[in-house]
Amino acid sequence: MDSVRFLLDLAILLFAAKAFGILARRVGAPEVVGEIVAGLLVGPAVLGLVDQSDFLSQMAEVGVIMLMFEAGLGTDLKKLRQTGWKATLIACAGVFVPMALGTALFLCFYGGPGQLLKGLFIGTIMSATSVSITVAALKELGKLDGVVGTTITSAAIIDDVIGIIVLTVVIGMTGNSSGSALVIGKAALFFVVAIGSGFVVYKVFSWLDAHYTHTRRVPIASLCYCLALAYLAETYFGIADITGAYVAGVVLCNLSDAGYIERRVDISSYMVFAPLFFTGIGLKTSFSSVDAKLLAFSVCFVIVSLLGKVIGCGLCARACRFSGRDSLKIGLGMMTRGEVALITAQKGLSAGLLTADFFTSVILLILVSSIVTPILLKREYTKYPTD
Amino acid sequence: MDSVRFLLDLAILLFAAKAFGILARRVGAPEVVGEIVAGLLVGPAVLGLVDQSDFLSQMAEVGVIMLMFEAGLGTDLKKLRQTGWKATLIACAGVFVPMALGTALFLCFYGGPGQLLKGLFIGTIMSATSVSITVAALKELGKLDGVVGTTITSAAIIDDVIGIIVLTVVIGMTGNSSGSALVIGKAALFFVVAIGSGFVVYKVFSWLDAHYTHTRRVPIASLCYCLALAYLAETYFGIADITGAYVAGVVLCNLSDAGYIERRVDISSYMVFAPLFFTGIGLKTSFSSVDAKLLAFSVCFVIVSLLGKVIGCGLCARACRFSGRDSLKIGLGMMTRGEVALITAQKGLSAGLLTADFFTSVILLILVSSIVTPILLKREYTKYPTD
Repeated sequence: MDSVRFLLDLAILLFAAKAFGILARRVGAPEVVGEIVAGLLVGPAVLGLVDQSDFLSQMAEVGVIMLMFEAGLGTDLKKLRQTGWKATLIACAGVFVPMALGTALFLCFYGGPGQLLKGLFIGTIMSATSVSITVAALKELGKLDGVVGTTITSAAIIDDVIGIIVLTVVIGMTGNSSGSALVIGKAALFFVVAIGSGFVVYKVFSWLDAHYTHTRRVPIASLCYCLALAYLAETYFGIADITGAYVAGVVLCNLSDAGYIERRVDISSYMVFAPLFFTGIGLKTSFSSVDAKLLAFSVCFVIVSLLGKVIGCGLCARACRFSGRDSLKIGLGMMTRGEVALITAQKGLSAGLLTADFFTSVILLILVSSIVTPILLKREYTKYPTD
Repeated sequence: MDSVRFLLDLAILLFAAKAFGILARRVGAPEVVGEIVAGLLVGPAVLGLVDQSDFLSQMAEVGVIMLMFEAGLGTDLKKLRQTGWKATLIACAGVFVPMALGTALFLCFYGGPGQLLKGLFIGTIMSATSVSITVAALKELGKLDGVVGTTITSAAIIDDVIGIIVLTVVIGMTGNSSGSALVIGKAALFFVVAIGSGFVVYKVFSWLDAHYTHTRRVPIASLCYCLALAYLAETYFGIADITGAYVAGVVLCNLSDAGYIERRVDISSYMVFAPLFFTGIGLKTSFSSVDAKLLAFSVCFVIVSLLGKVIGCGLCARACRFSGRDSLKIGLGMMTRGEVALITAQKGLSAGLLTADFFTSVILLILVSSIVTPILLKREYTKYPTD
């Protein structure tokens, strides 16, 4: 009778995440790195104590949604407005530089007639930043609501939208498209609808907040709004659910009880959900057998992906008058890749632009970027503190 | 692409649970009643907005485990020791009185040669108290750690063990048994192992607590211990997981940080998990077509089940020198039935002692007892407050 196996899975993952998180902090690395390593260790890749399951991946999804919702709640709207246009430019550079480099890399390895489109697709996979790990690292450092933190978060959100457009265009080149204009229109519509309805939502919550300060109903209703917007974003607008969750947070970030809401969500998140998200990254990792050429390609793929973001976003940030050190931080913060890269790869597989082998490269990229980014960010922030 | 449908389900359930919870309180009923009604309304029985899913039922399971863990954490060991033997007697009366009445009821309706065993089985279904609803109601009233609350909770835990033994014996009469002695031995062994190892666990947590007061690692490690013990109880000892969770709470209840742990678990629980448990009860309810005789039987079944506990536990409590009012509270508190009754019915179906029709009666019992008990308890406690 193993119908309650998920209870044991939860116990093992939460315990391992906390233990390795503490260990990571002892050696000077961010706690999230320890949690990812914990997932890698107890998962199929090493010990095999816990297998990925639907339940765990859905819990993990709730975890990353809570994380992005908190990031949104903690947003300083003034800073967001200040950094908005810079973030847009940085996001564009962060999409197109890695894309160009990725295409070039693929053609170096597997060049030949008719390979350009496949190369472009490899570039597309490289272009999608998943900011959740960076958000967690910045939160740990207490720098999430600084100018640099706000820039990274909003650039990553815009990156998500540009990524969707690029993906649609590239898939469109194979003739499998559902209409690029439609996709772009839907993405734009999401922001119009979310921000437009946001004013009404904000009014309702302000009223709730004023009449029922510090009661449970405010954080619970907020969480429901966040979950619903995340669902709507992904299901009807083709935008990642975490983008919806972040926008929900931004809508509510000026409430006087925003801190109270954030604290409630944070406790649920650190007690259960967030560790499941981070261990989930490690849990999903299992390496299939690879040949030497693919291995070499994978290593180059990871290096180029990371450098592409650092160079693209970093130089662009520098051009936007950030200091050299801050530009480096922004570049580093944009390096993380996550599920969006996997989902993109999955779409490439369906469209015949990719073989399943390349999933190993993508998984390696997610794992390496998730571990390296927080470590480098912490190092930079410790050595050269900024707002 | 409805892979994120579970996000919408969560949003709807959490929102409806809170809204109806508030409504219930407005009309003087306990909040849990509103949450159950919310599940009934949005579920397949009425509106059909949300369907039961594996994810939701696993979340609900975590919710009830957290609830019982909190009940354990809030235990006053001195009161538990004082009330221990009384609780044992009350539990016995609470098993055998409904069982006798249930057998008689079945024989009245469906009597005939060879029906005695089936009657006994119907009685067995009636015997299993599920205390979680009562625990939630008492918590809402702030009476969980009183003498009456402690008696009800510990009686229900003992009831679970007696219920398992009775079930094994009755199934054993059909010749399908896996050895009653073995089952009883395993159940006893659980308490020996859990309490024996509990001393070591308590030492470890005391050390943690003293060195890392008010840090996240203490509540997280506690929750892991609770989940693991719940898993072990159900998987290896044949005891309900919630019993394991409660015992885990009792083991840790004397920690100086027990209140801190409880608060952390409580926030996770009320933000997400507990409402999913309560709405889940309503969600699982859907009535199949019934004939008049079965309907009449179902109504009698519910009445006899409720009265059986009130009479059995109440009279026994009175005999144990509780006041008349407190005896009534204890009887009322033991009325709730839950998943154990369904699981028992499921086993009867496999053993050929029951037809699927009777599930309607069992579901009706769970629903009615879950709604009626908190209302009556609140009324009693409001009119005649006791410790």
